[in-house]
Amino acid sequence: MSANTNTRVLIRNLPEERLQASDFEVVASPMPEPATGEVLCQTLAIGIGAGARAGLQGSASYAGAPQTGIVMNGQTISRIVESKAPSLRAGDLVICGSGWQAYAVHPARAVNKVDPIDDPAHYVGVLGTNGLTAYFGLLEVGDPRPGETVLVSAAAGSVGHLVGQIARIKGTRVIGVTGSDDKGQRLVNELGFDACVNYKDGNFRAALKEAAPKGVDVYFDNTGGEVLGAALFRMNTFGRIACCGVVSQYDTRNPAPGPKGVPGLLVNKRIRMQGFLVFDYADRYVQARQNLLAWMQDGSLKVWQDEFKGLEKAPAAFVDLLAGGNLGTRIVRVSD
Amino acid sequence: MSANTNTRVLIRNLPEERLQASDFEVVASPMPEPATGEVLCQTLAIGIGAGARAGLQGSASYAGAPQTGIVMNGQTISRIVESKAPSLRAGDLVICGSGWQAYAVHPARAVNKVDPIDDPAHYVGVLGTNGLTAYFGLLEVGDPRPGETVLVSAAAGSVGHLVGQIARIKGTRVIGVTGSDDKGQRLVNELGFDACVNYKDGNFRAALKEAAPKGVDVYFDNTGGEVLGAALFRMNTFGRIACCGVVSQYDTRNPAPGPKGVPGLLVNKRIRMQGFLVFDYADRYVQARQNLLAWMQDGSLKVWQDEFKGLEKAPAAFVDLLAGGNLGTRIVRVSD
Repeated sequence: MSANTNTRVLIRNLPEERLQASDFEVVASPMPEPATGEVLCQTLAIGIGAGARAGLQGSASYAGAPQTGIVMNGQTISRIVESKAPSLRAGDLVICGSGWQAYAVHPARAVNKVDPIDDPAHYVGVLGTNGLTAYFGLLEVGDPRPGETVLVSAAAGSVGHLVGQIARIKGTRVIGVTGSDDKGQRLVNELGFDACVNYKDGNFRAALKEAAPKGVDVYFDNTGGEVLGAALFRMNTFGRIACCGVVSQYDTRNPAPGPKGVPGLLVNKRIRMQGFLVFDYADRYVQARQNLLAWMQDGSLKVWQDEFKGLEKAPAAFVDLLAGGNLGTRIVRVSD
Repeated sequence: MSANTNTRVLIRNLPEERLQASDFEVVASPMPEPATGEVLCQTLAIGIGAGARAGLQGSASYAGAPQTGIVMNGQTISRIVESKAPSLRAGDLVICGSGWQAYAVHPARAVNKVDPIDDPAHYVGVLGTNGLTAYFGLLEVGDPRPGETVLVSAAAGSVGHLVGQIARIKGTRVIGVTGSDDKGQRLVNELGFDACVNYKDGNFRAALKEAAPKGVDVYFDNTGGEVLGAALFRMNTFGRIACCGVVSQYDTRNPAPGPKGVPGLLVNKRIRMQGFLVFDYADRYVQARQNLLAWMQDGSLKVWQDEFKGLEKAPAAFVDLLAGGNLGTRIVRVSD
């Protein structure tokens, strides 16, 4: 495409059942031009997270009412190519919400300038929504204490593989739930999880009990559904459940009923079950990114970055993520 | 019965479905005798609360594993008739857990001496488990702020009618859910509730929406089940649900599935849903009782005390309570 063309990925169709790549379309549009106070940003990488699926169901908290014909939303790390704002210069790295497109114009106040690092794509992975979600959800909502047991579902996923490692750094015993024995093995062998359990195993509840002989103090729930149901029965008195996402329920229009044991078990065990969105912690992102980066640099936090290359691959990357195809934080690398 | 006889009500049968008065039996036993360090207590009144039904299902948090042939458990206000402990004297009023019997022996450390008041039966009602449950559940778990909207289910019940009034004292708008229009009217007219909604009304969800035009900030859940399900959809962002009991599910062996919207709505609305048991706040009972008594004395807290007279009426009082027959705090008055 020419230098004056912007490649964009639009929502063509709002899925009623399972999302497909054909629910999106790639289009060529004119290059946008910044007005005074605005910047033109070139997308380097896009973070792909399951939460965006909820936006296509009309969960206004994520992305406003869903509609077709607009650019699919997503967090991006971008480089400014033209600035008409005094506070920013061409070449600056910024985190912004350009979505699935090669270029976007933003008001200067809507982008977040960040320092250069080895791979800027980390800003939409471990230092982006996924990593910050793991950080605040675990530490602020889950509130784990040394020696406790932390359970995390979708444990090999964008958020999960970071949750488990942060929990380990905080001195807890960490148990992951995955949908594959192979993923579980890698979490144990490569990331230091204490145990992993496969929820597709017919013996899942017994295996979970065996993996958590002292019960579960903090459950970081990425899935809802049957894994939440099983976890509730393993929770200890005064346990905390950080409700992060409901990936088991996104890709359907017939969500399962809620888990048995709500609210009965919550009462008997005095469990706190609390939903959160990472955006509520935006005023503390800078400090969180510093901590995450320090853990990466001292080797205690390993990041699995799961890349698709090329903007046109974004739909496939997203559909595959919802099917559990990712290992770690999924990004789409758009430009160097 | 003779002066040397103790009347006791035993659990004859653990109910599998609806509890019946015939699941209990009244027996005459020898009068117990206190040993050194113990006191003999005469029961004045017994508090009857729905939570005890959970104990018959095996919820160890309430009353240990359920069994037959033992005295039914219950909080009592008693008068010491004989003391073999230096710290207590005959005539002292004590709160204790004698259960459904006319006399009981306790170690001195297991009873709680209280000051005389006009009607000591209040110590097993508004100043007992029911009132303290309302107080701590609302103020500590629900954490209402002036101007917010508080919803309470089983609103005319032992706990509910106090929750609503404490919420009103704290400057919130108060909405009750009851199973009877008549009860709802009385809550509004006599206790200052702002509105009441009947969950048996086919129009319940719409009526709830109309009664809470600004949504619900705190839901004090005594029931679980469909009322919880409806409340979840009316909760505001950052709302709190204090899970106190599950009266809709006690009297059955086929509890309903959990509410839809758990955990999806918890995430999108960042709702905190937290179970509690009043016993966890035992070190703060004295202060709470002082506050409750002060509100009673200045007229801001009206207590509906719903009395059955005579120990042998305890089974009927309990069965009727589970069917929603009570208006306010139910007690069984055993002796003057």
